[in-house]
Amino acid sequence: MRGSHSSVFDSELYSSLFTHPEMKQVWSDENLIRCWLEFEMAVARVQAELDIIPAQAAEEIVATCQSLNVDWPRLAAETRSVGMAIKPLVDQITDVGTPLVKKYLHWGCTTQDLLDSALAMRMKQTLLLLRRQLIELGECLKTMAQEHKATVMVARTNSVDASATTWGLQVSSYLSELTRHIHRLDNLYPTAITGLFGGAVGNLASVGHDGIATRNNLMKLLGLSSPIGMMNASQDNVVQVVQFFALVHGTLCRIANDVETMGRPSFGEVREGEGGGGSSTMPHKTNPRASNMIQTLSRMGWMYASGATNLLDQQDVRAASMRVLNWTLLPESALSLSTSLDRACRLISHLVIDKQRMADNFNISKYFIMSESVSMRLADKIGRDQGYNIMKNLLKEADGTQDLQQLALNNAQIREFLTEEEIITACDPSSYLGCNDELIEETLAFFDATEKNLVG
Amino acid sequence: MRGSHSSVFDSELYSSLFTHPEMKQVWSDENLIRCWLEFEMAVARVQAELDIIPAQAAEEIVATCQSLNVDWPRLAAETRSVGMAIKPLVDQITDVGTPLVKKYLHWGCTTQDLLDSALAMRMKQTLLLLRRQLIELGECLKTMAQEHKATVMVARTNSVDASATTWGLQVSSYLSELTRHIHRLDNLYPTAITGLFGGAVGNLASVGHDGIATRNNLMKLLGLSSPIGMMNASQDNVVQVVQFFALVHGTLCRIANDVETMGRPSFGEVREGEGGGGSSTMPHKTNPRASNMIQTLSRMGWMYASGATNLLDQQDVRAASMRVLNWTLLPESALSLSTSLDRACRLISHLVIDKQRMADNFNISKYFIMSESVSMRLADKIGRDQGYNIMKNLLKEADGTQDLQQLALNNAQIREFLTEEEIITACDPSSYLGCNDELIEETLAFFDATEKNLVG
Amino acid sequence: MRGSHSSVFDSELYSSLFTHPEMKQVWSDENLIRCWLEFEMAVARVQAELDIIPAQAAEEIVATCQSLNVDWPRLAAETRSVGMAIKPLVDQITDVGTPLVKKYLHWGCTTQDLLDSALAMRMKQTLLLLRRQLIELGECLKTMAQEHKATVMVARTNSVDASATTWGLQVSSYLSELTRHIHRLDNLYPTAITGLFGGAVGNLASVGHDGIATRNNLMKLLGLSSPIGMMNASQDNVVQVVQFFALVHGTLCRIANDVETMGRPSFGEVREGEGGGGSSTMPHKTNPRASNMIQTLSRMGWMYASGATNLLDQQDVRAASMRVLNWTLLPESALSLSTSLDRACRLISHLVIDKQRMADNFNISKYFIMSESVSMRLADKIGRDQGYNIMKNLLKEADGTQDLQQLALNNAQIREFLTEEEIITACDPSSYLGCNDELIEETLAFFDATEKNLVG
Amino acid sequence: MRGSHSSVFDSELYSSLFTHPEMKQVWSDENLIRCWLEFEMAVARVQAELDIIPAQAAEEIVATCQSLNVDWPRLAAETRSVGMAIKPLVDQITDVGTPLVKKYLHWGCTTQDLLDSALAMRMKQTLLLLRRQLIELGECLKTMAQEHKATVMVARTNSVDASATTWGLQVSSYLSELTRHIHRLDNLYPTAITGLFGGAVGNLASVGHDGIATRNNLMKLLGLSSPIGMMNASQDNVVQVVQFFALVHGTLCRIANDVETMGRPSFGEVREGEGGGGSSTMPHKTNPRASNMIQTLSRMGWMYASGATNLLDQQDVRAASMRVLNWTLLPESALSLSTSLDRACRLISHLVIDKQRMADNFNISKYFIMSESVSMRLADKIGRDQGYNIMKNLLKEADGTQDLQQLALNNAQIREFLTEEEIITACDPSSYLGCNDELIEETLAFFDATEKNLVG
Repeated sequence: MRGSHSSVFDSELYSSLFTHPEMKQVWSDENLIRCWLEFEMAVARVQAELDIIPAQAAEEIVATCQSLNVDWPRLAAETRSVGMAIKPLVDQITDVGTPLVKKYLHWGCTTQDLLDSALAMRMKQTLLLLRRQLIELGECLKTMAQEHKATVMVARTNSVDASATTWGLQVSSYLSELTRHIHRLDNLYPTAITGLFGGAVGNLASVGHDGIATRNNLMKLLGLSSPIGMMNASQDNVVQVVQFFALVHGTLCRIANDVETMGRPSFGEVREGEGGGGSSTMPHKTNPRASNMIQTLSRMGWMYASGATNLLDQQDVRAASMRVLNWTLLPESALSLSTSLDRACRLISHLVIDKQRMADNFNISKYFIMSESVSMRLADKIGRDQGYNIMKNLLKEADGTQDLQQLALNNAQIREFLTEEEIITACDPSSYLGCNDELIEETLAFFDATEKNLVG
Repeated sequence: MRGSHSSVFDSELYSSLFTHPEMKQVWSDENLIRCWLEFEMAVARVQAELDIIPAQAAEEIVATCQSLNVDWPRLAAETRSVGMAIKPLVDQITDVGTPLVKKYLHWGCTTQDLLDSALAMRMKQTLLLLRRQLIELGECLKTMAQEHKATVMVARTNSVDASATTWGLQVSSYLSELTRHIHRLDNLYPTAITGLFGGAVGNLASVGHDGIATRNNLMKLLGLSSPIGMMNASQDNVVQVVQFFALVHGTLCRIANDVETMGRPSFGEVREGEGGGGSSTMPHKTNPRASNMIQTLSRMGWMYASGATNLLDQQDVRAASMRVLNWTLLPESALSLSTSLDRACRLISHLVIDKQRMADNFNISKYFIMSESVSMRLADKIGRDQGYNIMKNLLKEADGTQDLQQLALNNAQIREFLTEEEIITACDPSSYLGCNDELIEETLAFFDATEKNLVG
Repeated sequence: MRGSHSSVFDSELYSSLFTHPEMKQVWSDENLIRCWLEFEMAVARVQAELDIIPAQAAEEIVATCQSLNVDWPRLAAETRSVGMAIKPLVDQITDVGTPLVKKYLHWGCTTQDLLDSALAMRMKQTLLLLRRQLIELGECLKTMAQEHKATVMVARTNSVDASATTWGLQVSSYLSELTRHIHRLDNLYPTAITGLFGGAVGNLASVGHDGIATRNNLMKLLGLSSPIGMMNASQDNVVQVVQFFALVHGTLCRIANDVETMGRPSFGEVREGEGGGGSSTMPHKTNPRASNMIQTLSRMGWMYASGATNLLDQQDVRAASMRVLNWTLLPESALSLSTSLDRACRLISHLVIDKQRMADNFNISKYFIMSESVSMRLADKIGRDQGYNIMKNLLKEADGTQDLQQLALNNAQIREFLTEEEIITACDPSSYLGCNDELIEETLAFFDATEKNLVG
Repeated sequence: MRGSHSSVFDSELYSSLFTHPEMKQVWSDENLIRCWLEFEMAVARVQAELDIIPAQAAEEIVATCQSLNVDWPRLAAETRSVGMAIKPLVDQITDVGTPLVKKYLHWGCTTQDLLDSALAMRMKQTLLLLRRQLIELGECLKTMAQEHKATVMVARTNSVDASATTWGLQVSSYLSELTRHIHRLDNLYPTAITGLFGGAVGNLASVGHDGIATRNNLMKLLGLSSPIGMMNASQDNVVQVVQFFALVHGTLCRIANDVETMGRPSFGEVREGEGGGGSSTMPHKTNPRASNMIQTLSRMGWMYASGATNLLDQQDVRAASMRVLNWTLLPESALSLSTSLDRACRLISHLVIDKQRMADNFNISKYFIMSESVSMRLADKIGRDQGYNIMKNLLKEADGTQDLQQLALNNAQIREFLTEEEIITACDPSSYLGCNDELIEETLAFFDATEKNLVG
């Protein structure tokens, strides 16, 4: 029905702001069913190979699953009644299956085996997609960092103008985080895609002979990692993924925070260039929608991470109540992150940089933010302590009419140690960028090396 | 498309487990559009009454809104581009409107006025529905508390059998929390349904004359509370609601925890009676699906409450990034709570109580959990301190072959102070229920008095 | 030992930044012991009055408790061994007590009765202190709102300059939230200070006759509210307090956010005036330490609120694991809030407002942010729709060389409907403040009315 | 002052329940100061080596730092005023230093360099200690898993008796998680101990020549990892650690949940053996204090993880407000985890296992939980589907008077396919343990291989 949805992820109004089409497909009902069917087919194949079930049974199970026309309303109704969707789906397959299908389908499996393996399958799809997105964003950032290696701007700490830096260095610092995230993804990938096959209570009792071999062959066929030992109650691998998402959101949020602040009219250093964001009442106004959405999505991602630890509150061989949380946490957190990565890519690639305003903004402090620069030149001659104090006194005398350079040039104490040229150079932001280029270079090299890792 | 949804709230598979039909309607896209249209109509009516716009304009605006055939795909596309859905909707109305509609629609309004007032309107629908659900659950609990006033069971503290109590008293303790929740709802209701009408920056500058009167008349017409002062950046009323939901989840989770534990085969004191919960592999097994879902939903509710405080991280006249969070937090948290309340009602009304097992379970400790009862009888004669010590010694001597009554009857020290009859009585759980009935009665009276409050 | 602490609340280095002396006293070990002793004395007095224990016993219990010289190391050692501190303390009293003390101390009580009632006693002290702090901050805000009723500044929404407002109105919007917080405090106060007296399993079985009367008299004597029904497992009243703290943090954080942003050199509209915040390396720099600490403390407060819902995960008559959380959540959350309120008071009362910069900042947009003002004047004549479009076109033509007023004066379409004077007035921020004064006035009146409520 | 503390981590009453002595030392004020002094000494040494400062200056700086007698009250007072403790400490060193010390101390450093590097130093101490604790607990679990490889017990899923398993397999499943945690620790260790040296705005401008070499040599001397690129605003490495702690808490909480449930008198399968936990009023009762404290500490750990993501909400070159959170999050989260690990070790090594009760508890279901076992024997002959249905019918007929074995033996349909011996075997739990031994073995091997990794 038109307009009947209530979640932002499915809402006709809002879903485009909260979802990424490819990721939405991964976490759709349809893909879930597809993964379950793939699991049933793979189990049958593997068990036939190991002579646990007849080869003919496997063939018929595969054929039935491949041609299954899911009766959605019936599936929904029975899921509501049973509380889980596996038995209802197995019943639909059995109903249309041959006697061999009826006899050998779902052999030795339990509901959790399907739930968890299908989760691992979608996790794999998710992580591979996210890795591509991370690299895509990384490329955008790399380009921008290189382009603005020498674009001098006010460096701000604790919200206060502090000294000089470059936009390229700031951008490279996003890339540095992003590269660590790719490393993290590569590290957690093998465990995150661990499937499950253990039977009712995880010890493979129902599988009959060759339990471990069945498990391992099955996981290989599904492209998943095999569990080590009994893992039915363990959710650490799943929670770790949601926590990882939260870290990535951190980088995106940081980019958005900077764009939002630097885009405020009083700064005017950057501007979102993709369009959109008009006000319904103020004709002159363009809102930083991309930054704001990225900030919103980051809070969602952090919230999911905070909720995810509940999954760890397990007991016995397994407990459903906390595990069911992953039905909502995983889709929502995967969608939020991929949407935000996509938005960040578009934000960065359309971002308009105003180098002139970046340069002009030094005027606001009359170059007093170059005080450390002057102070360090003094320190070279007379020590850090005394240099700092001379500057501190100089600043006390400033009445707002003169800029730092004028004051320093006119200060007898300073002139004792620094020449006119030294002072002028010290007050020039581009003279005081330290290891700007080396820092950018080592970051780009780090990204380049990481990107090439092979995963999946 | 079949199977394209990815949120549990809209999923064809899972939505019935996570939504309550009436609440889903409240938070649907369709109701959202309806609330916005209602707002535009009400603004026009109020402004016509105050001679801010022509009466004819109001009439035509109302007519256009009432007959509007929303072009959903266009609305979705423009929302994606603008980032907000208000201007796109206003444009659709304007497009089909008369010149007067074009001229006077959305007069003096800003996007936020519609967003926040529509939120308040749905909040009102939500709270009224939840209040009905709370009372319905309260009635179930009340009936059960009365019925089981004298149903003696083991009282457990810190997971250990402690003494005797009644199932009725335990149930009344749920009702006591629930009644406080109704009080809380009644307390927060007036502020939770505060609408907004302030124009671009909240000071009603765009409304022209009669700003405050317009605001107040509008809120009255919409059945909302008027704001006091400028509230554009304030989200405290919204956050408070989500926090309140978390408290209610606490009570439901506590009920579910008790049912789950008391329903474990080793206890066997209660059993979920509604059906469902079958295992796909273990024929004998029925899982406590209702309790488990309630536990799941409570974690969702607590997670939303933890995410909601982000809404408070505001700045300037208002900031979108955090406010957009309520597009997802409110629907999901309202749905989770109403679903859980509904499930709890069904759980309680179908719950099967096994009085015999409740009585039998005293045997597990050979009535040693009545030790405080004997100890207090001794204390009456010789003081708490000495009574406690005599019992502590008696317990040390117990070798597991005798029950407490036998041991006490054979203990010379105890027999010095207590008669055989006194010991036998002290070992009978129903003799040691204290103010059981009075406590139940005062709770029921509290609920009865609260239920009658008028709200809304 | 010097430097042995590890929590910011007790650290010699950091505690002054995270604690408020009066609140620290409330949550000290010492006050905790004092509350427990007060409880034991009150129980004895009440039970003597009701002839449950001899009057002489009560006198001796009171005398012993009052003169008790707590052996801290023994108390600590036994608490470590037992896991709770009540039995160890009761043992210390008993050890030095007369035979009557030994006989009647702790009569009918259980550990939880003391834990929860002492929590309620400290909650009462906490809430009364916080109410005073809220009013104190409210007075500061009120003064500032009145003083700056006409101090025109740029109104910003979504981080973008939007229109005109006053600093007084913005300040009044903080006060409006604060006033609602006082209302909330007054609403939750009676339940937040609910004590507990129920004996081992909450049914007063161990108290003997007059259970309910004992409970009620005891609560009255302790200045606490009596529970209604059996509340041993209920933590809703406690959690609600921590959630409430989170709401208050929201207002403080919002103030801090605004001060931080408006204090950035590119804005320069306000400046923290209390001193501190120097950089160890940049002589010119003063960091907004107060704003930053308030932001830090708000995250702590929100984190505690997110953790507090765990307290609701209860079962049986009561369960210790989640309840013990309040040993850390309550002190830390109460300290964080009172510290932040104190810091906010100092921030506001020392805040330096630069009216000139506030006025100058309109120049940044060449008064284009007054576009809605012009647009609404047009709308008065030709309708909202057409007015908006004319302005939108005008803005497209702007090349940055002219300000809004010049452009409008030279625009033929506009001049058709607006006179020169109308345009000049429309471009003056102080002409477009709407209901500024009425909104401030209704907020101040709301605060004045609330402040006078009597509590406690 | 006696009893003046208010945090559970420093409280005289409670700190022993919330802290681990070695970890408390790591996060003490004293160790913090020690790390800062070590940093200043190392900077001087490295800069002397690179001829940035005179060798004599370095010697004198080292001598002054080593002999520094910290004036704590002055340090506390100035920290309160400045808001950070670095400048106050640097001032104390300078005050007592020689002219060369005054001149060259803190050369090119900024406050953040010390804060972050000292954090990394304590992180290193923390992670090495935790790794030892993880291995210690792993050894306990390994021993128990081996000992109870064949200890048959009821396997429970979703709180319901499901089938048969062994206590050894369940214990091995804890070990499997724990081993993954050791892997995680080893993975995050190198980045978690990344120090910082970047000067005022992170580009090493203040360091003069050889910036990168200074940074790298300094990190090497301090035993820390060098940053790659500019990392001043980046907190991902820190947050990841707190998230990791949350995962470990999950395993501990799961152990505690199982011990608590299996220790309930109705189960009686395990019992905490370390002592403590007595009730102040019920002489017979021993509370599971260790399990409960571990559960409490896990919620604290999860709460800190939820708060930690705020650290990621960064902007500019760096922002203090969120970073200050790590002053409280890191100590508290490190203490909570090490305390819980310690408690879990003691819990496991003292745990009393009642094999008889484990065996007896099959009686509760009259061996109906072996239904899958019988059902699978049938499935071997007639297929899963039909086997399941025969059992389902059999169970419907059960009236509670007969056990599963009797029913099956008397069932004509079953007897058609299974012999008496097959039925008797199928009903014996130890016949239906599947790959129990192989699963345990692969887990132990996984742990053994991991433990040997070298770190640090």
